[in-house]
Formats: sequence, C-alpha cells, structure tokens
Amino acid sequence: MNAIPNNKLQYLKFLSELPLFNDIQDQEIELLLPLIKVINYQKREMFFINVDKRPGLYITFDGQFKLTKVNERGDEMIIRVVSNGEVISPMHFSQYYEASAEFIKDTTLFYLSEDTVNQLVKDNSSFAKNIINMLAENIQSLMMAAEVWRLKNTKERLGWFLASANTNNLGKLPISKSLLASYLGMTAESLSRALKKLGDEGIKIEHKMIKQETGKELCSYCDRVIGVNCNLFGSKNCPLF
Amino acid sequence: MNAIPNNKLQYLKFLSELPLFNDIQDQEIELLLPLIKVINYQKREMFFINVDKRPGLYITFDGQFKLTKVNERGDEMIIRVVSNGEVISPMHFSQYYEASAEFIKDTTLFYLSEDTVNQLVKDNSSFAKNIINMLAENIQSLMMAAEVWRLKNTKERLGWFLASANTNNLGKLPISKSLLASYLGMTAESLSRALKKLGDEGIKIEHKMIKQETGKELCSYCDRVIGVNCNLFGSKNCPLF
Repeated sequence: MNAIPNNKLQYLKFLSELPLFNDIQDQEIELLLPLIKVINYQKREMFFINVDKRPGLYITFDGQFKLTKVNERGDEMIIRVVSNGEVISPMHFSQYYEASAEFIKDTTLFYLSEDTVNQLVKDNSSFAKNIINMLAENIQSLMMAAEVWRLKNTKERLGWFLASANTNNLGKLPISKSLLASYLGMTAESLSRALKKLGDEGIKIEHKMIKQETGKELCSYCDRVIGVNCNLFGSKNCPLF
Repeated sequence: MNAIPNNKLQYLKFLSELPLFNDIQDQEIELLLPLIKVINYQKREMFFINVDKRPGLYITFDGQFKLTKVNERGDEMIIRVVSNGEVISPMHFSQYYEASAEFIKDTTLFYLSEDTVNQLVKDNSSFAKNIINMLAENIQSLMMAAEVWRLKNTKERLGWFLASANTNNLGKLPISKSLLASYLGMTAESLSRALKKLGDEGIKIEHKMIKQETGKELCSYCDRVIGVNCNLFGSKNCPLF
C-alpha cells in the first residue's frame, strides 16, 4: 500500500474547503491533483499576465499578491489584492488583457490549465455553478470598488474598507497600510489624514487590528452588501434597516 | 394546426442569435419561450433593483437603459449602459446590492426567473458556458472602465471610448453626448473641451458618427482589448504590435 504523501492530504483538505469545489466529492478533487501544477513565487517577484502566458486558473494556496495596471506616466492602480484561498482566472478574459502580478508575500499558486477547467465545467454542473459564483463575486467587488472610488471621499473610502474588514476579516486589516492607501487610490499622507479623522470618531487601527470605542462607530460607513455577515445585521441596532 | 404567433418567431430568431444561446438548439430555446416574461418600459421610466425585487436575468429585446448608483450628496455614477441584445443578471449579485435602472429609450425586456436560469445551467453545459462567458465579459468591461477612469485623463478617456465605438459599433456613437459625459465621469463642458482637443488631432463626431481625417488618428487611443475587431489589428499598420 502506498503511503499518501503528506502534502497531498494537505492539498486535498485545502481544495475541498474552497467555494470553487463546493458540492464536489473528495474523490473527484483527488483525480484533479495530478493535473495541478504547483508554482512558488518569492516576495517582490513579479509575473505578467499577457498573451504569451498560457491562460488558465490560479488558486492561491498560500501568500498574497497584487494585480496592477500602470499607465505610460507610471501611475499605478491596484485591480485586486489576492490572498490565501482566492482565485484568478485569466483564461476568462481577453487574451490581450495585460496585467502584472507582484507578490507581497512568498506565495504558492496552484495552476489549472484552461482545458482542465473547461472540461470540468462541461462534466460537472456543480463546478460550473461554482465558477459562475466566483465570477459573479468578482463583478460584485468591481462594482463596489468603482462606487467607492467614484462616489466616496477619502475618509468615507477608508471607513468603508474598515467596516468591511471588521465584519468580513475578523477585525484584522488584511493588507499593509501602504498597500491599502494604494488600493484606495490615495497617498500615504491622505490615508494618515483620513485615519486621524476616523480616530476622532472613535475608530482606530492598533497592531493591524481595527478598534472601535463603542463597537458601533463603523456602522455609519457600512452598507448592506459588506455588512451581511455582521452580528447586528438586520437587528434593531443596525442603522441600515 | 395552430398558427405560430408572429412575435414568437421573431423572439426565437432574436434569442437564437444571442451569445447567451450559443450552441443551443432552436427547439430548446422554443421550450423556454413560455417561461419568458415580456416587460415593457417607457422612456424616462425607472425601476429599482433591490432585495424586494424578484431576482433573475433580464435580456434587452429592444431599447436602452442605464444602471446607476447615487450617493447621499446626489452624485451619480453610471455602472453600465445596456442596449439591444445585452443582458443583466441581478440574480448573480448580493441580494442587498441596490442599483437603479433608468430607461433612455422605450424598452422591452425579457425576464427569466432565477430558478429557470439555474435549471438551465444545471441541465445544459453550453448554457453554463455562455453564462460564464457573459459574466467574464462583464468583469473585463468593469476592469477596463476602472482603468480608464483611474489612469486616463479626460481627453484619453474620450479617445479610448471613440476608438472602441469606431471598431466595435461600426463608427457610430452608441449613446448620446450627455450620457457619454456622465459615463466617462466628466461634465458636459469637459467633454466639449476634450472633443475640441481631439478635433485638433483630426477626430470628430458628426451626426453621431465618428470621423477621422486619415482613418488612423484613433489608433493612439486604442488598446489590444478594444482593438481586436479592427481591420488593422496586428497588421504592420497597427501601432499596437
């Protein structure tokens, strides 16, 4: 009897807990393992998503990276910060869409080829549904980001981000302050000023944790989409209802 | 023998030509017809997408509307302008995501319920693939819009939009100038100024048609994603290669 390699079990457990493999049997995921390519990147390394790259789907097993676009004047925008368990699928976009990924931490990605993913979609309606949900969430985030960017001032942007992290990331800041400033499209100085204003309202960041004086100060920056996992959501203490 | 109502044939032809029904037999589409609800809206009418609305999928049979978000200061952003043949699927987003649709023209929408769409995804892998492609295109557009918004100045934004419409909409401006200004996040005055600058470069709008002096002026505003359908794309006359 062959001993199952240790990381195989670890990979299986990791994959089976991802939304991408919802309602998919462990045996089926196990059959996938030989088709997965494991790629390691070091902090500060970059890779470019472009027409020459074989498109496919990447699952972040461990680590963090940012997807960015830069214009000819050198201005950078962060499209998305991708963390543990999150997925990007360049195969679903124009082969001519270019973006760069810069690794914020040492990162391990699982790569599935376009053919493998398409075959799974064809053979397994649960997987198709999971891909649909993943893309839909992506759209939701992009619509929210556009709204935050275009309709909120710097303090409101930061408040919104903290309200979301407070509810959806156990009160922990998921990215560094400098990355956050860049993600929210402001300078480090603007972020400091916004943070000071929020401080006056009783909202602080201490050791990467979000703190509120009474626990309800962030409510005024919340909305129903990011607040759905909050304990207070929909209760008589929730100002959104 | 029953005579097939005229509009049934018309609807069938319309649906069978949509990307959403790629690789789906006419007989299968015909079975769907009784499940489709036809809804008419008048120009300037509004409807709100929110938690009380039954979510589902809407296909624009005819007409045009804009999806917008407004903040508490009354600033508006256009998320998307939806025209003939285009689809929106609120069912794929958070039930708490609110947006309003305002009809720019008299519009006829086809409505499919969430259950109908989910059943189709489950039963027909081609339909699942088409939904995946539709959502992916949506993401692509939102990423491009974010980039245009955040990394381009007003002249570049307008040039980019015109380059896209020139290639992908037969040189016809798909929306009115006032809607375009709002979509690109600028005032009517900024749009006029940007248009004047482009005019100096040989790019004009006449009777809603985009005109170029030599036919190549818009090339400098093009990119590989929007330019893929251009006659020149990838040729030695294309500056993108």
